[in-house]
Amino acid sequence: MKKNPKPALIKDQKFTLIAMSVLIVILAGVLIGVLIFMKNQPIETRGVPTIVAVDPLEPDSSKWGINYPNQYTTLLQTEFNNTRTTYGGSEPFSKLEEDPRLVELFAGYPFSKEYNEERGHRNALTDVRATKRLSDKTPGTCYSCKSSNNPQLWSEMGMETYDAMPFAQLGEQITEPIGCANCHEAGTMRLVVTNPALENALVAQGLNWQTFTRQEMRTVVCANCHVEYYFEKGTNYLTFPWTNGTTIEDIEAYYVEDGHIDWTHPDSGADMIKMQHPDYELFSAGSTHYEAGVACADCHMPYTRDGAVKFSTHDVHSPLFNPASTCGTCHTDVDYVVGRVEEIQGQVWQTMSASEDAIVAAINAISTAAASDGVDADKLAEARLLHRSAQLRWDFIAAENSMGFHNPEEALRILATSIDLARQAQITAMEAMGK
Amino acid sequence: MKKNPKPALIKDQKFTLIAMSVLIVILAGVLIGVLIFMKNQPIETRGVPTIVAVDPLEPDSSKWGINYPNQYTTLLQTEFNNTRTTYGGSEPFSKLEEDPRLVELFAGYPFSKEYNEERGHRNALTDVRATKRLSDKTPGTCYSCKSSNNPQLWSEMGMETYDAMPFAQLGEQITEPIGCANCHEAGTMRLVVTNPALENALVAQGLNWQTFTRQEMRTVVCANCHVEYYFEKGTNYLTFPWTNGTTIEDIEAYYVEDGHIDWTHPDSGADMIKMQHPDYELFSAGSTHYEAGVACADCHMPYTRDGAVKFSTHDVHSPLFNPASTCGTCHTDVDYVVGRVEEIQGQVWQTMSASEDAIVAAINAISTAAASDGVDADKLAEARLLHRSAQLRWDFIAAENSMGFHNPEEALRILATSIDLARQAQITAMEAMGK
Repeated sequence: MKKNPKPALIKDQKFTLIAMSVLIVILAGVLIGVLIFMKNQPIETRGVPTIVAVDPLEPDSSKWGINYPNQYTTLLQTEFNNTRTTYGGSEPFSKLEEDPRLVELFAGYPFSKEYNEERGHRNALTDVRATKRLSDKTPGTCYSCKSSNNPQLWSEMGMETYDAMPFAQLGEQITEPIGCANCHEAGTMRLVVTNPALENALVAQGLNWQTFTRQEMRTVVCANCHVEYYFEKGTNYLTFPWTNGTTIEDIEAYYVEDGHIDWTHPDSGADMIKMQHPDYELFSAGSTHYEAGVACADCHMPYTRDGAVKFSTHDVHSPLFNPASTCGTCHTDVDYVVGRVEEIQGQVWQTMSASEDAIVAAINAISTAAASDGVDADKLAEARLLHRSAQLRWDFIAAENSMGFHNPEEALRILATSIDLARQAQITAMEAMGK
Repeated sequence: MKKNPKPALIKDQKFTLIAMSVLIVILAGVLIGVLIFMKNQPIETRGVPTIVAVDPLEPDSSKWGINYPNQYTTLLQTEFNNTRTTYGGSEPFSKLEEDPRLVELFAGYPFSKEYNEERGHRNALTDVRATKRLSDKTPGTCYSCKSSNNPQLWSEMGMETYDAMPFAQLGEQITEPIGCANCHEAGTMRLVVTNPALENALVAQGLNWQTFTRQEMRTVVCANCHVEYYFEKGTNYLTFPWTNGTTIEDIEAYYVEDGHIDWTHPDSGADMIKMQHPDYELFSAGSTHYEAGVACADCHMPYTRDGAVKFSTHDVHSPLFNPASTCGTCHTDVDYVVGRVEEIQGQVWQTMSASEDAIVAAINAISTAAASDGVDADKLAEARLLHRSAQLRWDFIAAENSMGFHNPEEALRILATSIDLARQAQITAMEAMGK
């Protein structure tokens, strides 16, 4: 055979090429679709075959526990081991007894009656029912972070109805402590936002958690509860003040714009905001660990082994109790890093303590000025606003559960500002004094 | 032959064993001696064979440069590349123009006339001779950190004579900028403390630098200059206020006990301390990097290559100019860590700025109180002491060359305290006001 000149493709070849191209495009499309579907959320078939089917939003964690005994039994351990670290841990010691300045700072507010260090997750329901902060005006909303009944109740009655019920009445339907359904979707076990308030707060910032990666969700689900929140006046709707963002300045601006106040301080007369436990906000405000891609679960629910099985422990507590399996995952010298934590927490504690002294001094000065003849009303009002600004910053760090370690530089920056504002409140009150 | 009962060692064997034992002990002793001798200080025979012999304390760095051309030529580069980082670098911009509050803070002191960012090492001599801070009362002591003539001059005339000479007169003997002899011993090239004031300050703390490891010396030699110091009244002896330790509280206590002051602030009337550049003290006050065993030279003089030769660059400057070879030695994600530095420096800058506002307000309040009729003298004195305490803390961070990054948490802790004390000074001045 001689060499042919390049022949035109014959009809069959053309058809084959077109058919193959179409097939390739379809296969690529399907593959991309599957990858997108699988990217963020593990689906059941990727997990361990389950023994029993768990109903959607099932409140009873023991049923989930049949399929996931390691996760479940470690969750149960959060009821026990309630010991202390230097600055925190899970021992329910009285913060008011340890630091009587808090009684003055929270005067007129239930936190001046009882303010204990929190125990582990499985005690949350017991403890919220026993706190001296309860009254017959306490709304059902207080159960929002205490029970795995919640996702089902929110689904059935809606958050609005849930939040509108009195604490005692709603409590009749609350039987389970914090459990699987608070963070997981039954069947797929993917991590989900279950608290409607978190969903709303993310939407308000233009965020859709359904697009988050699994590693991002290993932080975001903690924000179902470990955040600053308030109850909307009148409705008692659980609301996160995140529309402007989640820094302390963003949150303060939100409260100023919204007009919400938690209580009026009886001694200074300032309209106050009580900060809850903004662990998520402080950690995610550009902390070293957050910026490095570390999730809450990496330190608080580290991977652990039981025989040949590796799983994320659900015995959530301070990483200082097991630094080798928490810090030690990334840091080679565990003694060194634990020493760093203690040092930094000491620096934060010292600065926080100075902040408390300054705020107490401000309260006293404002109280004295308010009682004086011929007080300058504008100056007095200004001093009260400064008291509020100072205390909400201090409380942002004080109520947060890491003695600043979730974000040391940000914690110290905030406390420095708190001190400055508190002393300015004191100065402004002196300026407001009559004569 | 039948089996013998275990025979007694014959005389020859006994002798051999004893001799061998003695030999082993001697050899081990010699080996231990050699190891002890070599542990901290490299000796010449371990280094590169030299081309020329350099005289002890030789001031002329170009002579050392024949043996160590890479180190020498990189040292020469410190004369150039005087560009800025966000908060520092080597561009000699005027800090007074950038932040006019400093003019008020340093009122009555030469730093209110000129206060520029420092240029690189090879410019130090030129710049000290050109500063507007000079007067005909400036002592020779000011040359202590500016020249490689110093070790020889101190050796020949003693620090006491050196410090007793006027700046202009001593200057006739100063020909060399900072160079090899400031940190190295000729011949051995080991790192040495050359500044008698550093030697004295270490001895006062019971420390002997001759026992320090090489890695420790890669930080300590920087303390020949990068420290807080003062000139003893009358003698002008260069002195480091370290007898109590090197934290800001230790240093303040030293000045209180010693009674030394740098100047009296004309507006507040407070007896003030000017902090110099306490890079060493801040860094070594339990910073993350110091505690992890990182030396100044690791970040500011990283190992670099010229062809096949690896050496410590002597082009000392901010690690932010070459983060890949500085941060990147330990941290895998250089963009991430540089971002962290910028973030932390921003937090420190913001807090430092608040501290300046507070101190300026304190000065104004004290000035007003002092001019008022019937002022309470005790209260006024108290306010002045508070002004001094606030400003020396602020200056400890402001004069330090890292915008807090050498020790972020400690920097923020100190600035928070500075703000607190400045506002207390303002409050105390208001309380002192006559009616």
